[in-house]
Formats: sequence, C-alpha cells, structure tokens
Amino acid sequence: MRCFVTGCAGFIGSTLVDRLLAGGHEVVGYDNFSTGREAFLREAIAHPSFRLVRGDLLDEPRLTEAMRGSEMVFHLAANADVRRGIEHPRKDLEQNTIGTSNVLEAMRANGVPRIAFSSTGSVYGETAVFPTPEDAPFPVQTSLYGASKLAGEALIQAYCEGYGMQGSIFRFVSILGERYSHGHVFDFVASLRRDPTRLRVLGDGSQRKSYLYVQDCISAVLTAIDHGSGPVRVFNLGVDAYCSVNDSIGWICEELGVSPAIEYTGGERGWIGDVPFIWLDCSRIRALGWAPEATIRDGVIRTVRYLQANPWLLEERP
Amino acid sequence: MRCFVTGCAGFIGSTLVDRLLAGGHEVVGYDNFSTGREAFLREAIAHPSFRLVRGDLLDEPRLTEAMRGSEMVFHLAANADVRRGIEHPRKDLEQNTIGTSNVLEAMRANGVPRIAFSSTGSVYGETAVFPTPEDAPFPVQTSLYGASKLAGEALIQAYCEGYGMQGSIFRFVSILGERYSHGHVFDFVASLRRDPTRLRVLGDGSQRKSYLYVQDCISAVLTAIDHGSGPVRVFNLGVDAYCSVNDSIGWICEELGVSPAIEYTGGERGWIGDVPFIWLDCSRIRALGWAPEATIRDGVIRTVRYLQANPWLLEERP
Repeated sequence: MRCFVTGCAGFIGSTLVDRLLAGGHEVVGYDNFSTGREAFLREAIAHPSFRLVRGDLLDEPRLTEAMRGSEMVFHLAANADVRRGIEHPRKDLEQNTIGTSNVLEAMRANGVPRIAFSSTGSVYGETAVFPTPEDAPFPVQTSLYGASKLAGEALIQAYCEGYGMQGSIFRFVSILGERYSHGHVFDFVASLRRDPTRLRVLGDGSQRKSYLYVQDCISAVLTAIDHGSGPVRVFNLGVDAYCSVNDSIGWICEELGVSPAIEYTGGERGWIGDVPFIWLDCSRIRALGWAPEATIRDGVIRTVRYLQANPWLLEERP
Repeated sequence: MRCFVTGCAGFIGSTLVDRLLAGGHEVVGYDNFSTGREAFLREAIAHPSFRLVRGDLLDEPRLTEAMRGSEMVFHLAANADVRRGIEHPRKDLEQNTIGTSNVLEAMRANGVPRIAFSSTGSVYGETAVFPTPEDAPFPVQTSLYGASKLAGEALIQAYCEGYGMQGSIFRFVSILGERYSHGHVFDFVASLRRDPTRLRVLGDGSQRKSYLYVQDCISAVLTAIDHGSGPVRVFNLGVDAYCSVNDSIGWICEELGVSPAIEYTGGERGWIGDVPFIWLDCSRIRALGWAPEATIRDGVIRTVRYLQANPWLLEERP
C-alpha cells in the first residue's frame, strides 16, 4: 500500500512510519518539523521505500502535490500541546482543524479514499461514564485541543458521508514509549535530572489517567485498518487500567533511583482544561483481536529508560 | 443590555434584533449581506438604539472594532445552506467554524463575557434516540454544516472553560415564519407559483422533521439567557412533535389552493447528508418555563402567507 503519513517526524508518526516500512509498504512522510525531529527518521530515510516531504499542512498546494498517488492517509500531524492551548488559541484551530480540512481537500483532489486519524480521549471532556465508551453521552469540550480534534473528527465524518471516503478515527489516551518527547513523564524526568531532591507537580497528584505504549498503539491502528468496513469507524485506544499521577511519579523515581520532596501546586486539575480522570472503554478495538502487550507501568519505565539513553531530547528544551 | 448580533440581517437574526430593541436593549448588528437582506432591518434601522455594521466574520479587525463595548454576543451568522455543503466544502469551515473562532477572539479582545450561539439539531447526525436529548450518544456527523456547527459549539465550550466566558448553545430544529427565505417551504411555494400543476420532491416524502416558529425560537433564546447560570449550557429548541414532508406539502397546497401531481426523486434522504428523522427532546428549555405557542402546521401556514405577501423574496432567487 502507498501510505501518506502527516506528522511523520513526530513521536507516534515516526514509529508508525518504521512499522509501515517493516510491513513492506511504501511511505511518503510529510512534516513541518515544528516539533518533529530528523533523528526519529534516521532509519526511515535510509529505506528505499520512504520519501520525506518537508511542508506545513497550511501549505495546501504542497500538501496536495506530495499526496499524489497515495492510497491511504495516516493523519497524525497536530499541535499536541494540550496544556498551553489557552496561551495561543489559534494554534489548535489552524494546525488541527484547518490542517485536517486541508488534508481532506488534498485527498479529494487526489482521489485518495481512506484516512486514519489520531484523535484524543480529551474529546469526552469531563464525562461521567467510566470506562468511557465511544458512544458516551454527547460531551462538553474543556480544552481547545479537544475542541480542535473533535472538529477534525466531524470533518472526516462529513467527508466520508459526502464524498464516499472511508475513515478510521482513533481516540488515544496519552501515549508513552521510545521517542516520547513531551508530557508529564518528560517533564518529571527533565526536572529530576536537573534537581533530584525535589519535584513540582501540577495539581494534587490524584489525577487519574490512562496510558498506552506506542508500539501497542501502532498495532491497534494497523489492526483496525486491516479489519476495515463501514464508511466511518471510531475506536478508543488505551489499556483497561489507569494510574494516578502519584503512581507514575513513584515508578519514575524508582527507575531513576531518586527520592525527591514532592511539591503539589494543588487542586484536582493540573491546569485549566485538564481532565482529572481519563479511562477509556476499549472493547471495540479489542473485539478485532487487538490487545496491548505493555502495562502502564511498563510504558512509564520504557519511557524513562529511553529518555535516559537520549539526554539530547531532555536538554534541547528548557 | 448592549447586544451584538452577528447575522443581524438574516431571517432569525433580524427577528431577534427587533425583539431585543422592543425589550429596551441597545443593539449593534453585524452582517456581510451575503444572504441577509436590508428589507428585514427596515424597522431596526429606524430605531435609535440600533447600529448596523457591514462586515464579514473573516474580517477580524472590523469585527473586533464593531463589538467594542458590547455586553453580550448573539452569534447567528452562518452559512446555512445545508444541502449544498458538498458543492463548496470550505464555506462551512470558513463562515461557521473560523467565523465562530473570530467572534470568540473578538470577545476576548473586548472583554465580552457572554455568548448565545445558534447551533443545529443536525449535530446529532443519524441518532437512534427519539426524541433526541442534549446528552444523546456521541454522534457521527453526516453533513459539513453539522460538522462546522459542532466545531463552533466545541470552540465556545473551550473558551468558556479557558477564559471564564458564559455560553448558551441552542440546537435548533428548522425554523419557520415571517422572513423565512430558504428551505423546503420556500422551494415548494416558489415552485408551485411557477407551476401549480406539479411539484418535484427530493426523497420519497417520508422524511420526518420538526419545525419551530421563529417568534417561539426567539422567546426560547431570551428565556434561556434570562435564566442563566453555569459556564456552558446547551439547549435543544423545537416543538414536541414532527411532521412528514408529505404533511407539510398537504398544508402548503391547502393554503395555496392547489393540487399538484407530486414527483418524488425517491430514497429516504432528500440529499447526501440529509437526516431522514429529526425530533428533539426539549424538556430542558421547557423546564425554564418556555413553551412554543405555534404548532408546526401554524408555522408552515404563516410561512406560506408571508411568502405570498412578499413575492419579491421568491422572485429574486431562481
């Protein structure tokens, strides 16, 4: 299959590219390198079936040209900075909503019939149903990130209905693993390397979140698209468990061999729009035969080890 | 209250403006006149508390300047051409989603704390729950119009959470009444005036829809904002009934005194993305004391009489 991967130089995107290449597919990768990293594509670039195009989703002619001849789009490019959404409210709209519209228009122009999309469990807002199924009650959005991803989902659904495309929408929990380069494990490891005696934690440490190991995430996406039918399918992707921020801190500190004094900023939310409890019902994707291999603890520990082995990632950002 | 009304020259917007002025409020109206009509503002323009600003939602500096000093925004401007969405897929994104983002940014720049937003029952897509409550299962979008309105809702919700605004989101069924100027009653009356002997109907005539009379719609909006609490509230607006397209045709023909031969294009949907059954549960807004005064039949008949008294509306569009 000739695959087009947006956000190909990102944490999840580059992992998907490697897996697609290993599976014998041809891949064109598209990235603006705003947060993507060339280092993540080192193996891909050496592969004869990979071609890299540098470009922004907002550069529609370039996007359309790059996509020519593709059979399926994996649309992973996004502004994923959930926490700082309210500091730059246009960024989510531009990169996530308008960007997705441009991807769909480029697909229409090129006659590409299939798309897989990385959405987020954040679209459930502060749901009251746990674990949360895909058909949970109509949510209220609490972050610009969630709002922009919901808008992307809705656009894909309308294009599938209107133009006969096939869409697979994946609502991810937070993803962990090799090449992980932003989020709470990153922040904690970076902080503890600077000063192992203390750790500042946003919120009260009781927030409960679910995490999925990146290779399990990619396996789930590939399982779903290999078992595809129906114009639009929506899948939660996560594990059947959750942990508290304090659990995660415990595993990180154990792995690093440190015992910091913990300072909590307080409150049940880490930041405005933070969702204090995320736990998704993943029975729909499990019914296709997929199951995760790593636990949340495995994911945290592999992430810590990866960051320790790749200190350049921790050092390049303050 | 100093009110800012986008889409002030439209069917619903101009009716709201008249009601706000009658209620003693000051109103700044904003419209690009792409589908709005000066004739609808004749009385408003003569009122000392009304000021009209011609401008597009995409002209953000103009929008921001026009909104200065307002206390509440009624955001009604939209591309409302649901049926032709797939002929110009960018229009819904630009006018409805990006337009709403610009309204919210202008509110933020001006410190305007409250917004009322005209969304649509179309955001429920092809739900299986009737009558459909506001917390129906997480929907799948079937039209670009619904997708763009859902994106607008989501943006408003995220701004309310992130910036402490108050939002009231109204999911309208189709609205009927004086100044109605597009939709199935319009098309049928226009067609029957040209040729009363035959009528072409999209679909098989069995589509079931709910309609609300425009003055009842405005009363509901005003009731909700007068009984406001909570950062984000979502209300369905409709009547506790529905009719078939064939019912509606019967009332129209009776009122016009014609007996056309009906030609059905066939199929349960009138067009791609048409939702064959819309019927909303409006108990949430009814709990605030509102109830509609007009039945669907009343609304259809008043619309027909209005169009007969205002043939210029029927004639200006082919």
